[in-house]
Formats: sequence, C-alpha cells, structure tokens
Amino acid sequence: MLGGGQLGRMTALAAARLGYRTHVYTPEADSPCADVSAVATVADFSDKAALTAFAASVDVVTLEWENVPPETVALLARLVPVRPGAAVLAVTRDRIREKTFINHLGIATAPWRAAHFATHVAAAIDELGRPAVLKAACLGYDGKGQARIDTATDIDAAWHELSQGKAFDAVVEGFVEFTCEISVIVARAADGTMRSYPAVENQHENHILARTIVPARIEPRVAAEAEAIARRITEALGVIGLLAVEMFVCPDGRVLVNELAPRPHNSGHWTMDAAATSQFEQLVRAVCGLALGPTDHLCCATMENLIGAEVNRWSELTAAPAARLHLYGKREVRPGRKMGHVTWIGGPLAGDTPSVLSSNGTARTVRS
Amino acid sequence: MLGGGQLGRMTALAAARLGYRTHVYTPEADSPCADVSAVATVADFSDKAALTAFAASVDVVTLEWENVPPETVALLARLVPVRPGAAVLAVTRDRIREKTFINHLGIATAPWRAAHFATHVAAAIDELGRPAVLKAACLGYDGKGQARIDTATDIDAAWHELSQGKAFDAVVEGFVEFTCEISVIVARAADGTMRSYPAVENQHENHILARTIVPARIEPRVAAEAEAIARRITEALGVIGLLAVEMFVCPDGRVLVNELAPRPHNSGHWTMDAAATSQFEQLVRAVCGLALGPTDHLCCATMENLIGAEVNRWSELTAAPAARLHLYGKREVRPGRKMGHVTWIGGPLAGDTPSVLSSNGTARTVRS
Repeated sequence: MLGGGQLGRMTALAAARLGYRTHVYTPEADSPCADVSAVATVADFSDKAALTAFAASVDVVTLEWENVPPETVALLARLVPVRPGAAVLAVTRDRIREKTFINHLGIATAPWRAAHFATHVAAAIDELGRPAVLKAACLGYDGKGQARIDTATDIDAAWHELSQGKAFDAVVEGFVEFTCEISVIVARAADGTMRSYPAVENQHENHILARTIVPARIEPRVAAEAEAIARRITEALGVIGLLAVEMFVCPDGRVLVNELAPRPHNSGHWTMDAAATSQFEQLVRAVCGLALGPTDHLCCATMENLIGAEVNRWSELTAAPAARLHLYGKREVRPGRKMGHVTWIGGPLAGDTPSVLSSNGTARTVRS
Repeated sequence: MLGGGQLGRMTALAAARLGYRTHVYTPEADSPCADVSAVATVADFSDKAALTAFAASVDVVTLEWENVPPETVALLARLVPVRPGAAVLAVTRDRIREKTFINHLGIATAPWRAAHFATHVAAAIDELGRPAVLKAACLGYDGKGQARIDTATDIDAAWHELSQGKAFDAVVEGFVEFTCEISVIVARAADGTMRSYPAVENQHENHILARTIVPARIEPRVAAEAEAIARRITEALGVIGLLAVEMFVCPDGRVLVNELAPRPHNSGHWTMDAAATSQFEQLVRAVCGLALGPTDHLCCATMENLIGAEVNRWSELTAAPAARLHLYGKREVRPGRKMGHVTWIGGPLAGDTPSVLSSNGTARTVRS
C-alpha cells in the first residue's frame, strides 16, 4: 500500500479479513495505516533503496493516493505489478488530461479550458463567463489549490496566489447549475470484469465531503446513466482496482463528470456497513486477482464525515443504535482533518432535501 | 490483548475500526493477531519484565484465551484493569468450579461428578452410568483432554492416559439426550448493562465446531430461557466483556448448560456479517467503557468453519455471492487447525435439519 492515511488503513483492515498481510510504504511516521499493517516502511517516495526493498517484499502494489510521484510508480512497476497502473495515474493526476480523456469518450464535463499563464485565464473567462473556478491541474484536494473567480476577482492576483510564481498548469471551469452531486464507484478486475456500486449523493461543506446519502435521490434513468458513464470511463482507462467518478446532475437531467479518483473514495465509506462487499475489500479483490464481490446495497444509509473537532462526538455516536462509528486513530485533531466517519443505517436524515447548488461557488449557492 | 490467535486478531481489527491501537502479548512468534496490531510483544506468560512493560504501555487488558495463567493475570491486574478479571477466569478455567458455580445458581447442567483419582471415576460411573465422558478440569478445548467411557472402556487406562501419571483433576459427565447444541453470547459493560445475541445452533464434527446456524431452530420459549440463563450467569460472574454460554436443548425442552467461555466465541463469528454490532466490537466497547452496541441479527446466516485443508476452498468462496470469507493469515495449514470461516448470508443451508444428538458421544450419535 502506497500511502498511510485512512484509505490505506481501511484497505489494510479489509485485506486482513481475507488473510493478507499488508506492507505500507508511507513518508509519514505514525500513520493510521501502519497501526494495522504487518509491515511498515517510513521513507520518502523518492528513496530508491527503500522502494526496491519494498517491491521485493510484496506480491502486488496498490495506492490510496493518486498523486504518488510517477517516478515512484515507474520504479516499482519494473519490479512488481502496480494496480492501478501508471497509465491510469497519468490521466487522473492531471485535470487537463483527465477532462480531455473524458471528453474524448463523448462524455460531458462542465465547460473548461486549460491555462498555463494568467493570460490564458482571462481568455477562458471571456468564453466561459463569470463566476468560474481556477483549479490547479495537479495535487488539489478538498478545495485546496482552487480559487473562485467572481465579478470582483483580480485574475492576475488569483493566478499568482495559486502558482506561487512558479511554472503552473491549471484549468478554468465554467459555471454549471446542478441539483445534486453524485458519485459512482466502479471496481474492475484484471480480467476486465466490472462491478459498480449504486450512485450516491454527496454534500460538501467548506469544499470537504460532509455526508453521503445512499442511494442518491435521483431518477432511476439518471442513476443508470451515471453508472454507465462511470463504467465506460473505468473500462477505457483500463483500471485494475477502483475508480470513483464524481458527477453533477443538472436540472434538465444531464450528468456531467466532475472528477475521477482511482482509489477508495470517501463517498464509498458507507459500503463498509451497508453493502454486501465494502469498497476496500473490493479493491483488495481486484488487485489480488480474486473474483469481485457483490455490490448490492443492503439498506438505505447516510455516511457523515467527522471533520476536526467533530470527532469529539464519538461517545454520543457509540450510544446511538443506528450509528456505525469508524475512527482513524489519528493522534492529532486539526481543523479540516478527516478523523473518522459514521454510517447511519436505515435511511437519509430527515428533512434533508437537495436544492439547486453551484458546482464551483460555495456549497448551497443558488443561482436564480 | 493476551493471546495472539484469530480471536485476538478479529478483536484487534474491531478495535482499529473504533480508532484504538492494540498491543498484543503472545508467546507465539508470527501470530495472526500481531499482523494487525500496532505493537506486539512476543514473550512467555511467565516473563515478569515483559508483562510489566506491557502493562505500562496499555490502558486496559483483555484476553482471547481463558487459560492465561492466573499468576499472569494477577501481576497485570495490579498495574492495569484486566477485563474480564481474575475472579471470572478462576471459575471458567476449571470445569469443577464452573459447573459448581452454575448449579449453585439453580441452573442445570448434565449430571457430573468431580474426580481426583481413578477410583473417583469408577464411583461416578456407578452413579451416572455408561456411556459417560471423562474431561480434564483444565485446559481442554476442541475435544482435547477428553475420553469417552463406554461399556468396554478400561477406566484406569483412560485416567492414566489423560493424567499422564500426574496429579490431575477431572469431571465425569453423565449421558444426556439432546436435540441440538446452542449458544448465547452476552456482553456486559462495566456499569452492569448487558446485551445478548440471539441463541444460535452449533454443529460439531470431530469435536470441533463445524457450523453455526443463526438463529437456532428452537421454540421461542426455549430461546428465551437460554438467553435468560446466559444473562444470569454473566451477571452472577460479574463479567466485564463477553461470556459465551454453550447449552444443550433436551427433547423435553429443558436447557442444560455445557460450558462457558469468557471471551469472543467461535459461535459468534456470524455477528461480523449479520449483526448490528460484531461480538469483537462489543468486547472492545465493554472493556473500553463505551456503550454496548445493538445486537440485532440482520438476516439469517450460517457460519461454517474452514478447518485444515478446507481453507483451500477460498477461491471458490470468494466467487460465491452469499459468502463472506474471513481468513486468519495463518502461515501453516495443519489438520484440525481453524484457518478461517465463511458466513453464508440469507438462511440455513438447505436440507440441514437437526436430529437427536449425544452430548458426549461422537457427533450425530442417535440414542434409541
């Protein structure tokens, strides 16, 4: 396992259930994953000796972070299978390649332009209008590496803030109206077999996933289209492992792809408590060459992230009969840090109906 | 965690889910539990320095094996809470104390006599009749430390085989007719709160649990009585943690207690896949002072042990949609060794109806 965070941790737990021993490779001392792994290597992703020894000790490599440096993946892939492989990661680590790939399949995204200089942003805004969002092509997550471009925004200032004065690739995304954000997670085995989880509905707060409602409250036709889109992309990329496909559902029923993640995804955590096979076990099955498991969802559920100090609700949550609590064993509580999650079994939270949201404004912005 | 086998392993996995770090103490190198624990101490249970260091590193101690030496528990208990405690273990590690304790509560067992010499066995047989079973008072499991006393059995020879010529305590159990073997697992928190799992039906082969059928196919009245018995014993013992109570159901509906185990129990493995809270998480909750979780069973299920070479069915089992496979990561397959288990979701196996079994003959012996 490359990367030692909670996604690696939950994968290692699923691997253990199937009798596998996990060796985690992570730059981070005291990582959540190391606590539950048989072996841990704490070393930088550029440490060739450590990578070589790691590769010699394992049968197959997977990852919980799609931004593992390409050189790291290339070195390992010469020694041991890496799943998903370099070709998948090359696409998903770069928003420009990712959106190009998706559009080439005839699948819609929000309108976007690549930008390599501040002048490109201004030109893109001329075409796409305001508001828009400037996003770093690489290494962004949870709203990091993004700037909203509004009527009053100084484009040069926004560019310089994100680029830090260095060579910088970005995309400019135009505004789209949507009724909800959804995601579909697809598992694909080495033999090409695919299994997808039902479309789920994601609600963000402060650019971080706050909760996932299972299943998404969308028309069956829309759910089927979302699933078909996710499978087409997974197959076209040749993923071995998991692909999470985040999408927007527009008021007219159109589905637009937002972004891809070739790994377990926060919006799939509910599968641990309410699906026949968890996304983590599914990843283990795919990369280890086992048959994929059934993906039926067993009941309605709502997954709620415990961000920062919200983890202090643990005691109340252990006492709630419908709550299935998961804590990641992180030593330090920090604002915005994912400390754990809880799956509420039995249906969506009452009174929580979707409204028209903005893809790139703050959450819950309604466009008239 | 004292003991590094599969019960410790599955407890450590449940603890990790709740964010706890497990330190396992086991005499066994390469134990199944160490592979998923944050820290492992490999040392003998008599190693005072290692035990002292272990106690200093943990907040609470529990165990997966009730035969941890009393001196070990006493040393640890002076330094850190041990749950369940020495008083519980003193009863459950010795069949004589255990049966006496149960009978003193007014709860029935099969008729039995204590035996400290071969002559005691002969006297017991005079009262109880043949067939009967001679069982070591301490350290027996999976049929080990037992001898059936039949018409032709030389009692002195049986005694000498079990005692190995040393001082030896045993019980002689009389024959009882029963329609099925069941068990109830009760969790009890430090504040005295209890939660019990539904009664389940256990089928043994070669003295080893082969499968557990959930729920047991018994009258509701019998199930209620079994649950009440298990709760009374748990409360009387003052268990903090789990108590598994194995019972026989007689053709007349009477319930007789067979034996107790103050730890997670093989007949509770189904809870990982078909109960709201697994027995392992329940143990963690009890010993860590959390609220106990709900014990509802979510669907019918059959748990099947994978003994010895049966583990080679893993590939077929990963491909069966109703199967939830668990492997313990044991390096070596040995006859009679518990290598893993599978929970079949959705109901008892077809055509598998109970018949009249003998408590102390080989499994499936029918008495006319």
